Amino acid sequence: MNLLNNGSGIYTDYYQLTMAQGYFLTGRTDAVSCFDYFFRENPFHGGYVLFAGLTDVLEMIEGFSFSDEMIEYLRPLGFNDDFLRYLRTFKFRGTITSVREGEVVFPLEPLLRIEGTLIEAQIVETLLLNILNFESLIATKASRVKAAAGGRRVVDFGLRRAQGLGGIHATKAAIIGGIDATSNVFAAFHNGFEVSGTQAHSWVQSFNDELTAFRKYAEVYPDRCILLVDTYNTLRSGLPNAITVGKELEERGHHLMAIRLDSGDLAYLSKHARNMLDQAGLPYVKITVSNQLDEYVIRSLLEDQGAPIDIFGVGTRLITGQPAAALDGVYKLSMCDREPRLKFSENYTKLTLPGVKTIYRFLNEEGLFSADGVTLDGEPQPESIFHPFFPEQRSSLKHCTSEVLMQKVMDGGRTIVKSSAQESAQYAQKRLSHLAGEHKRFEFPHIYRVGISQKLLSLRAKLVEELQQKF
Amino acid sequence: MNLLNNGSGIYTDYYQLTMAQGYFLTGRTDAVSCFDYFFRENPFHGGYVLFAGLTDVLEMIEGFSFSDEMIEYLRPLGFNDDFLRYLRTFKFRGTITSVREGEVVFPLEPLLRIEGTLIEAQIVETLLLNILNFESLIATKASRVKAAAGGRRVVDFGLRRAQGLGGIHATKAAIIGGIDATSNVFAAFHNGFEVSGTQAHSWVQSFNDELTAFRKYAEVYPDRCILLVDTYNTLRSGLPNAITVGKELEERGHHLMAIRLDSGDLAYLSKHARNMLDQAGLPYVKITVSNQLDEYVIRSLLEDQGAPIDIFGVGTRLITGQPAAALDGVYKLSMCDREPRLKFSENYTKLTLPGVKTIYRFLNEEGLFSADGVTLDGEPQPESIFHPFFPEQRSSLKHCTSEVLMQKVMDGGRTIVKSSAQESAQYAQKRLSHLAGEHKRFEFPHIYRVGISQKLLSLRAKLVEELQQKF
Repeated sequence: MNLLNNGSGIYTDYYQLTMAQGYFLTGRTDAVSCFDYFFRENPFHGGYVLFAGLTDVLEMIEGFSFSDEMIEYLRPLGFNDDFLRYLRTFKFRGTITSVREGEVVFPLEPLLRIEGTLIEAQIVETLLLNILNFESLIATKASRVKAAAGGRRVVDFGLRRAQGLGGIHATKAAIIGGIDATSNVFAAFHNGFEVSGTQAHSWVQSFNDELTAFRKYAEVYPDRCILLVDTYNTLRSGLPNAITVGKELEERGHHLMAIRLDSGDLAYLSKHARNMLDQAGLPYVKITVSNQLDEYVIRSLLEDQGAPIDIFGVGTRLITGQPAAALDGVYKLSMCDREPRLKFSENYTKLTLPGVKTIYRFLNEEGLFSADGVTLDGEPQPESIFHPFFPEQRSSLKHCTSEVLMQKVMDGGRTIVKSSAQESAQYAQKRLSHLAGEHKRFEFPHIYRVGISQKLLSLRAKLVEELQQKF
Repeated sequence: MNLLNNGSGIYTDYYQLTMAQGYFLTGRTDAVSCFDYFFRENPFHGGYVLFAGLTDVLEMIEGFSFSDEMIEYLRPLGFNDDFLRYLRTFKFRGTITSVREGEVVFPLEPLLRIEGTLIEAQIVETLLLNILNFESLIATKASRVKAAAGGRRVVDFGLRRAQGLGGIHATKAAIIGGIDATSNVFAAFHNGFEVSGTQAHSWVQSFNDELTAFRKYAEVYPDRCILLVDTYNTLRSGLPNAITVGKELEERGHHLMAIRLDSGDLAYLSKHARNMLDQAGLPYVKITVSNQLDEYVIRSLLEDQGAPIDIFGVGTRLITGQPAAALDGVYKLSMCDREPRLKFSENYTKLTLPGVKTIYRFLNEEGLFSADGVTLDGEPQPESIFHPFFPEQRSSLKHCTSEVLMQKVMDGGRTIVKSSAQESAQYAQKRLSHLAGEHKRFEFPHIYRVGISQKLLSLRAKLVEELQQKF
């Protein structure tokens, strides 16, 4: 979804426009280029990233344009008439090749590349980074939270603590990462997600007593009644009242759906709640919990404390990706005027990979992902790959089968591959099932092998050598 | 600015709508209520929060409505025809009383209150929390970053790492918090902010050599030329080339504006850069740095290393509020059907303050903020205030002058007080100047006194007593 409408051209950093004018005025309007999107580190000290945001980026790039109003705004900011005329009719007409949304990906791989003029590839950079970095971060976080819940239902409750309108893309990314439903009606409307939610403490407080509050809610929603039991005293007031209403619903041929705990010790309270509900003859009433949850708290509740919880409502830490704020994705020039380009660095791990590239994924005998190899586009499946920074470390992959991970998704400015969030979620789930458990450990996971081909290694070495001779 | 347009009614949590229908169907459509917005903890282990987001919230609440399309979307989700007809013509008609945008505020104070029907106060909760929590977080972060820079220019470079469209409100909040300019053209366009930016590594890489890249940029922008000097080798290539171009600009009657360092050790490199520029007769060329900056790194660069830096470009950690993800602001019912209400809790620090309230701010002889007192609305200036949880701790404030912090900002659904981001920024700066330094320490600040009046204390005690008798 694109909330920016016809003003999306200015959803950019100012320097993209000053550079664009620079290219324009120095006769390089038609210079061709290739840029790569990649990240350098897995967030959350984890072992992988789920790639998300592609569908939104393609939609936003297709609609990327400058209205008359935007052009008039830019005029006094140092832009000249010829360039502004060019900008007024600007449309992105490049080609984008990318891994699929929902793909399991790793550091240093060129996940997406843009081939087009320098100007067009440059001025969409900011929006591309903004959306891919954020949606990939949240999809990755969501997959961890969902994994911790081990098949139990997880619902996104985060909109009130989301980073402003970022909550809209965050919910979409959370669904791609495996979350089951959301409280966010806006995102649900635009994407067809299942909505979920029941009552707040204010509902209970607004009545003179808790039992009346529960009864009134059950009257309106007899078949989807979830009662929040911690407004006053969970075990001495909330649960007894919920049980009373549960029995009353039974008498009228309905079933109380669930109770929700939103404070206190969720392990202690859920165990007592389960006992009280079971002893009252309400074993079917589910227990929902919320309050500062993330993958670690959920794992601890389930594994360490054996808490009998059925549904998790997860807010802040899911929807903002805490403790990470952003995926460190970058966008680097790899080709210009048909020449491979390099960003050199005093820090060798920040050296970029030159040339137009693709990714091979190698599978082992059980069909699990075994290693990824970055090659120059058009190279056959490499027989071995080299560690990108310690090329002495080489892996032979002669007898492995492989798949090419990248496909063309936009051609001449037109999107040719689309994926709904639900489709991307299914794909992500399938792909995660091919990633061995040791790469999914929440912390200190086994590092997945990503290497580069002999040809790419040689090309980079040659360019580094040429550059070093200059200083 | 309101990007949601006529679909803003669904920018909410689903349970707001189920509760609204519940009130509607149980004959409580006209029940009146009061809700408070407050937070419980200062973010960043700091000593204060800058209140921001008010202007955007008021605009979004004024436009809060449900289009036909939204109504048809909701119909199959469990809403009945009468309620949907009510929703179709829904408009917020309540009254909002709030501290000013840019105010320096503290935990537990009711910063904003909404008086209106239960339904209207309830269904705007999510958007209110979403925007106030986020903008206040970022404005607070920005004020810390700006304080660390000690009067030097700070520019927001964060859009590419912002949490999706959250970057739009984040830039606005950063300006309210004291940041000087932004790279975010979208936010600048909508709010009249100064834009800033120059060139990326890709500009330099796109030419066959760095010197040509610099010359071409200087040709296009002779009077606002900032050269990024770390694409290949900062001291051996970038700076010598920048100096060459700086001298060439001088010959043509222009001045090189600045160089930018974006990697490596910024203290080490800025000192060498300063020396090289000075020795080359270019003492006026400023030094801009960027790369993973926040208040701590800036303070360390300036205070510990004495780095000769003129301008800081701050990205991720400013625009996402790292290491905090969200201000923990909540929205609690304090009055319903003209009766004060309480959210009880097993954790006494989560007990809410009942009744319609306001805030007095006490000033000491030097005009510095000395303490805040929360009272029932209409109470005269209290002579003493009590710690909200340890009422034995009491402060006498007999001879202090005071101000009332809250004012009516929306009346019957119409905004009556507006503030541009620039006005809010000025107000914030003025107010921060009245906050003693010990409350502004980045960590372990002196805790600012916030107390409650005798009357409020008694009201709460009475309600707690009544509730406890029930269990």
